[in-house]
Amino acid sequence: MTPRDAASRKADTLAMLATPEIDVWVATASADGEAHLVPVSLAWVDERAVIAVPEASVTTRNLIASGRARLAVGPTRDVVMIDAALERNVDVDVDPTLGEAYATQADWDPRGDNGYVFLVLRPVRLQAWREADEIKGRTLMRDGAWVV
Amino acid sequence: MTPRDAASRKADTLAMLATPEIDVWVATASADGEAHLVPVSLAWVDERAVIAVPEASVTTRNLIASGRARLAVGPTRDVVMIDAALERNVDVDVDPTLGEAYATQADWDPRGDNGYVFLVLRPVRLQAWREADEIKGRTLMRDGAWVV
Repeated sequence: MTPRDAASRKADTLAMLATPEIDVWVATASADGEAHLVPVSLAWVDERAVIAVPEASVTTRNLIASGRARLAVGPTRDVVMIDAALERNVDVDVDPTLGEAYATQADWDPRGDNGYVFLVLRPVRLQAWREADEIKGRTLMRDGAWVV
Repeated sequence: MTPRDAASRKADTLAMLATPEIDVWVATASADGEAHLVPVSLAWVDERAVIAVPEASVTTRNLIASGRARLAVGPTRDVVMIDAALERNVDVDVDPTLGEAYATQADWDPRGDNGYVFLVLRPVRLQAWREADEIKGRTLMRDGAWVV
């Protein structure tokens, strides 16, 4: 395999993020330095990563406190890594457009589930690589802007 | 699919951890609450998760400072989640037995790579589940001891 060029990586990345029923690994940290990691369903809506989690979860608590998460989509050897900032958190029944977009891509619908929130995550840095030969050139977005 | 019983989950877990050329997601946190997440090759040696990473990496720095990581092995819907403690870190050329065990399972051999260390991680809590119907009964190890 030859390393993909930047345009191919971006196209592959956008296709992966829009895949129906795809999951995302969400890593967050507590204020005292304990890492948390969970797999949850992903929706990619208007260039934002959207997840639905219990408001009382460690992920929600960490994200509201720190404002930051590191996301991984795809298998370990075809990965999209996203450093993201929390843009907003909203009860799952408050924003019908967001709820509809989420339920369309994900394979479940959290609307009506008491205590669930949507966390809307804005990508700040995005990297994509498959194997070691793609480490070079892996950064496709920097400071929230595509570089390709 | 009916949920697997505890014995099946343990057997599946041990088989997965011993899989040749398998990767592990490693989530760590900095002291100021920034999460880090990387996919790396895994070796499962004497009930320890062993990874090889640059000594200067964020993962090494976080693990030496905090002593803790959260690991995920397997795809998002057949996952083994491990909360682990750093047992020791050792230059890749110092412990030949460990180096041999790592290189046998992984698909690369870090020995001779200047600046790489083995991080030996002791599982403290281990959970395994596939879908939502396996959330109940997912804890297979608690306080470092198998409960099944």
